[in-house]
Amino acid sequence: MRYALSAKERRGRKALAALYLRMGRREQAMSQKRIRDYGIQVGRMETGTRNKITDVPGVLVGHSTIKNEENHTGVTVILPGQDNAFVKKYTAASYVHNGFGKSCGLVQIDELGTLESPIALTNTLNVGLVWDALTDYVISQCQKEKVQVRSFSPVVGECNDASINHIQHRAVDREHVLEAIRCAGEDFAEGDVGAGAGTICYGLKGGIGSASRVVQIHGTRYVIGVLVQSNFGATEDFVFNGLPAGELILKRKREMERMASSDLDQGSIMTILATDLPLSSRQLKRVIRRTGVGIARTGAYTGHGSGEVMIGFTTANRIPPVKEGEVISQTILHEDKINSAFQAAAEAAHEAILNSMVCAESTKGIKGEIYHSLAEFLPFLTQKEAP
Amino acid sequence: MRYALSAKERRGRKALAALYLRMGRREQAMSQKRIRDYGIQVGRMETGTRNKITDVPGVLVGHSTIKNEENHTGVTVILPGQDNAFVKKYTAASYVHNGFGKSCGLVQIDELGTLESPIALTNTLNVGLVWDALTDYVISQCQKEKVQVRSFSPVVGECNDASINHIQHRAVDREHVLEAIRCAGEDFAEGDVGAGAGTICYGLKGGIGSASRVVQIHGTRYVIGVLVQSNFGATEDFVFNGLPAGELILKRKREMERMASSDLDQGSIMTILATDLPLSSRQLKRVIRRTGVGIARTGAYTGHGSGEVMIGFTTANRIPPVKEGEVISQTILHEDKINSAFQAAAEAAHEAILNSMVCAESTKGIKGEIYHSLAEFLPFLTQKEAP
Amino acid sequence: MRYALSAKERRGRKALAALYLRMGRREQAMSQKRIRDYGIQVGRMETGTRNKITDVPGVLVGHSTIKNEENHTGVTVILPGQDNAFVKKYTAASYVHNGFGKSCGLVQIDELGTLESPIALTNTLNVGLVWDALTDYVISQCQKEKVQVRSFSPVVGECNDASINHIQHRAVDREHVLEAIRCAGEDFAEGDVGAGAGTICYGLKGGIGSASRVVQIHGTRYVIGVLVQSNFGATEDFVFNGLPAGELILKRKREMERMASSDLDQGSIMTILATDLPLSSRQLKRVIRRTGVGIARTGAYTGHGSGEVMIGFTTANRIPPVKEGEVISQTILHEDKINSAFQAAAEAAHEAILNSMVCAESTKGIKGEIYHSLAEFLPFLTQKEAP
Amino acid sequence: MRYALSAKERRGRKALAALYLRMGRREQAMSQKRIRDYGIQVGRMETGTRNKITDVPGVLVGHSTIKNEENHTGVTVILPGQDNAFVKKYTAASYVHNGFGKSCGLVQIDELGTLESPIALTNTLNVGLVWDALTDYVISQCQKEKVQVRSFSPVVGECNDASINHIQHRAVDREHVLEAIRCAGEDFAEGDVGAGAGTICYGLKGGIGSASRVVQIHGTRYVIGVLVQSNFGATEDFVFNGLPAGELILKRKREMERMASSDLDQGSIMTILATDLPLSSRQLKRVIRRTGVGIARTGAYTGHGSGEVMIGFTTANRIPPVKEGEVISQTILHEDKINSAFQAAAEAAHEAILNSMVCAESTKGIKGEIYHSLAEFLPFLTQKEAP
Repeated sequence: MRYALSAKERRGRKALAALYLRMGRREQAMSQKRIRDYGIQVGRMETGTRNKITDVPGVLVGHSTIKNEENHTGVTVILPGQDNAFVKKYTAASYVHNGFGKSCGLVQIDELGTLESPIALTNTLNVGLVWDALTDYVISQCQKEKVQVRSFSPVVGECNDASINHIQHRAVDREHVLEAIRCAGEDFAEGDVGAGAGTICYGLKGGIGSASRVVQIHGTRYVIGVLVQSNFGATEDFVFNGLPAGELILKRKREMERMASSDLDQGSIMTILATDLPLSSRQLKRVIRRTGVGIARTGAYTGHGSGEVMIGFTTANRIPPVKEGEVISQTILHEDKINSAFQAAAEAAHEAILNSMVCAESTKGIKGEIYHSLAEFLPFLTQKEAP
Repeated sequence: MRYALSAKERRGRKALAALYLRMGRREQAMSQKRIRDYGIQVGRMETGTRNKITDVPGVLVGHSTIKNEENHTGVTVILPGQDNAFVKKYTAASYVHNGFGKSCGLVQIDELGTLESPIALTNTLNVGLVWDALTDYVISQCQKEKVQVRSFSPVVGECNDASINHIQHRAVDREHVLEAIRCAGEDFAEGDVGAGAGTICYGLKGGIGSASRVVQIHGTRYVIGVLVQSNFGATEDFVFNGLPAGELILKRKREMERMASSDLDQGSIMTILATDLPLSSRQLKRVIRRTGVGIARTGAYTGHGSGEVMIGFTTANRIPPVKEGEVISQTILHEDKINSAFQAAAEAAHEAILNSMVCAESTKGIKGEIYHSLAEFLPFLTQKEAP
Repeated sequence: MRYALSAKERRGRKALAALYLRMGRREQAMSQKRIRDYGIQVGRMETGTRNKITDVPGVLVGHSTIKNEENHTGVTVILPGQDNAFVKKYTAASYVHNGFGKSCGLVQIDELGTLESPIALTNTLNVGLVWDALTDYVISQCQKEKVQVRSFSPVVGECNDASINHIQHRAVDREHVLEAIRCAGEDFAEGDVGAGAGTICYGLKGGIGSASRVVQIHGTRYVIGVLVQSNFGATEDFVFNGLPAGELILKRKREMERMASSDLDQGSIMTILATDLPLSSRQLKRVIRRTGVGIARTGAYTGHGSGEVMIGFTTANRIPPVKEGEVISQTILHEDKINSAFQAAAEAAHEAILNSMVCAESTKGIKGEIYHSLAEFLPFLTQKEAP
Repeated sequence: MRYALSAKERRGRKALAALYLRMGRREQAMSQKRIRDYGIQVGRMETGTRNKITDVPGVLVGHSTIKNEENHTGVTVILPGQDNAFVKKYTAASYVHNGFGKSCGLVQIDELGTLESPIALTNTLNVGLVWDALTDYVISQCQKEKVQVRSFSPVVGECNDASINHIQHRAVDREHVLEAIRCAGEDFAEGDVGAGAGTICYGLKGGIGSASRVVQIHGTRYVIGVLVQSNFGATEDFVFNGLPAGELILKRKREMERMASSDLDQGSIMTILATDLPLSSRQLKRVIRRTGVGIARTGAYTGHGSGEVMIGFTTANRIPPVKEGEVISQTILHEDKINSAFQAAAEAAHEAILNSMVCAESTKGIKGEIYHSLAEFLPFLTQKEAP
């Protein structure tokens, strides 16, 4: 397997990857080279401290990654906070931009405007087992707290990783979900980890990516954070830094051995948005729609087979049990001030996708083809005389 | 024209009707005999003081009725309050149960969750002129208050009154809208007045009807009020007081000269719901959906041609201009306590429809057929040995 | 345990129940006494031959029922036909009347207007395992046919049976789903079987129920069939045959030992509608909405906690693989002729609910209370001097 | 008034504009310089013959433009064909990307999947009068054909042109609508004409623009045509040809006297899509959503105040009166082949926006500021050393 990385880079990356697998710790995450580390600035707004979804206070992300001969998949969980979401629900919204997908839990989010569960991402055919594992987790969490659970709505999103992973094995089970929850933290790796282990994006390697933006309202700083599981896009449609990068990359394909590419815009992208802005469910729905603009900025037109599902929640305006009050006080952003949240959603989604691609390792598909990391193409995409 | 009213009743009603037309005052409204005056109780919940939508403090209703040789139509306005809704918007929601209709303004209510206009009801082909008149009204209202109006979303609902009214005349214009607004009050007539002048319901005379219910939350009394413009239903489907009333009425048709009836469930019903409950737009949408249950309780299955549109607003949680605050405090009912609002919506809609029918006068259609008032059939529908 | 059944009736029923459990055959289904067998006619339209959803040619229904000391639950599958739905998809639609529920697969039905899976119903906390089992089933079905499955959208509906079943056990697994599919047939039992084993309806025993109606279009007979998993309604709201049956039943409660009842309208109802009418996905959505009218006719106002989800499909207008044609010919009912389908949907849903209740056995809840069969109350509800 | 055009260019343009106003003929339209005439290629797909929405056979577009001291507005109509749409309806769909808008007629398109009216575009406060004029037109059209019109759903879209036009005058009336219909043709002017006379886009002059793409399905050529009324975007967000054009333009602002710009993304864009592809209403909805990608490609994130409404129709699959058949035959594109329609929608919307800007004349706002034509900036935006 030869590709554009230098031998040294390759060795470094491999070692790093092994380390991730062994330890799954935050330190590694911080050593990943992200899109800004290559001098690329996405949008105009200020980023949060980590430039990740976990800049929203309380939000944690964890992965469990399965990488072996046969399987290359996993699960990623987003915990809206550290206490029990089932007891004290989050104001939330979902938006389906293209419903060719198998996500679960959206119906209830839409009706009630609340999230009562961690959000788990996985591969398409594993939704059922992950659903069951989340239920397990919440039941046992509630049992500890002596809370009765008769009804519970897990939220599970998915992308189809069948090009890299033997998806019919449904390799993700209960333990992987619990492990991802256990090791969830404020920092987390991006790229080919967790639910992004087997995904592809614009024919390159996709994965998990994240970014955040600061929104100032009347002197207070809030954060909009986005996490994506990227798995969409035809190669020729990829736009990067104002360039028709997909077309340029395809031109280099003949020089690359076994380089993969995508002819069709299919596969899906899951977008999770977290914020601490005081928003209603209706407002959150408006905000998460704008992550679709971030997707469009990478070039895709949202192909038929690319299920695009957005889920958002705010850590403001939580809903306590009714015994604590039959009428609840909330604070809501004035709609005339919502534009910066819209812009933040678009920018953060855009950057999260690029991070998912640039942090991912080049990876072999099940037919032996190579899904390259965007990182490999950055040298020539960012040189002045690029096009 | 002979029908089941006694001569005396007939004379009394006619005199009354003339009086309405001349004076349009509240006193007459209070003299109308409503469904409860016939000993019929609808549902189990307590009604508001007037048992009308105007039990919600601040809400006013006005009619302008056109009744002459050719035209039998009008306009009804619902004012959410007495100040300028454009400046201080109402939290609102709309719900389309069957979108075969021409209502305007729903798109913006859905997106922003607010109402910035009086709601006007009229006939199907008059929506444009009424839209324009509402715009006129708001622009001049704002000019007085030195508020600039560049953009404004009037809300206009409609039913098709072409069986009684020469609808192609589009007889309603600017002056009727302004008159209805001018004479809006806390009490108002029901039956064949305003936008209900020409409507039919289950083949009988329909019209404007209203009802209200009291909802107690943690010791505080709130009101859910409903107003309908009823214009739907096939005669044979009409259910009243547990009886297949439509079938029973059809049996009497052969004894009645030129009695009209409806073979098809078509024509539409507009349902406006007001409340002072602290609800979000999402919650209001859930509440107004339940008015459809009230409609179903009268027997109809929502025919293809029966556009069924619901609009709701709350006088709680108004949205002031942004200069008064970029973050707004609101109070929201805990979802676990929303059931009584649901039940109230269903009961009030049910009773409002019956009031629209029983308060209406028997009226001649454009082909000379008679659309009878439900009041005429009550004696035999309510006798013990009825069925 | 004493309740209103005569000893003889009780014995007969128990024997019958045991028989069901042992054999799960069609003959038993035919021996159940349904609502029409009590002389009650629901609506005006002609029923199909069996008056079940399986009157739609090709549609099969199967149950797997779990009844033991601890668990009282199961799974019911609706097969749209006998060939592989994944290969030749069905035109379908979903409609969420109240989204407090955990159903899976609706997002894709909405987007693509197709069904590619059997529909499985189960209890709330078993959705994940049933989802996984359906996936198993389709993958192996496809492997036999040498069809590759990378992506597949199972459809799973649910009701919460926690009053009768220890729901946290999640007792339904892969084998039950496969068994239900295996024994699916044109006739099938109703009442406390399959996914209806543990459900309650208006505080009485609920379960699986079905009914059908014939729709004539231009001389051709089509069928609308409905199957419900009934699990909703406050006792006092129950309306039967024009009577406030719930109130009447509650009056008898003091005479009944340990009789259960429901104070709240919660729990959900799943409604599956099948037809052979040539409908588009948009039209199907309009048709399945009208099943909500059937629900309303039994008295409920669709409480907050009652997730009401409708799924419909037609066996006309199937979608073959693209290799068989890039442009597909379809036949679509003219919208002006859709009313009889609406009425059929309302009537069949109404009757299906009553069948679910009257076919169910009285059953003990997990706290020892008795959920009575509607059948026990029919003698007094149907006597002339009832109210 | 001085701006970047040479005196000669200015004179030429003014003369041309006067000519348009006097004659409103097709020949002028053909003399406008469009974005491709500047050497800019948008997307990869083949355009239709005219590269306008009227490449869809049968579709006609007409303008009526009001330009005088006080008013700078108008109306644009899109006729789906030359016969009576009310009698033989078009399969159609609408999609609301951001519902901050006053468009009328969407509710019925959504429910019934049909269009029965020309589509008229105008300014925000003129929707009512244009609604009424369209109704006039259809009633008289039907009277000629002896078709009874009791119910009719006009479709009116709008943008807010208050920066250039004294919108409160509501200067558009019945005659303008009828004139626009009368002079509708296969070719038509773009830029500051008709409903685009007063609109602004990215702080430059917006207006009416159009483009089309050819979609090949199994050897047959179909067309997707788009027409926009562009009135959205903050200047700094404008992206052109991969460049941050808005930022570059703002830098030149200090050199320009009274040059206007937009700080906020507000104002709206109406997008009309026509095609002859055999699509269902559901499929059309999917297709028109992708025009939002075209909008995003010009840089905007869909601001709060930018109502973005899409309406689409196909000239295939028309719906004749029911007397011609109770079951209708249709042809539907296989969903697996829909991607090229998606891509065409995105590309055509993108190019239509650029055409609306580049064809527009620089225009004075009501406060004397100048909304420049994009054409003025093209020389420096397209020079090699641009950024």
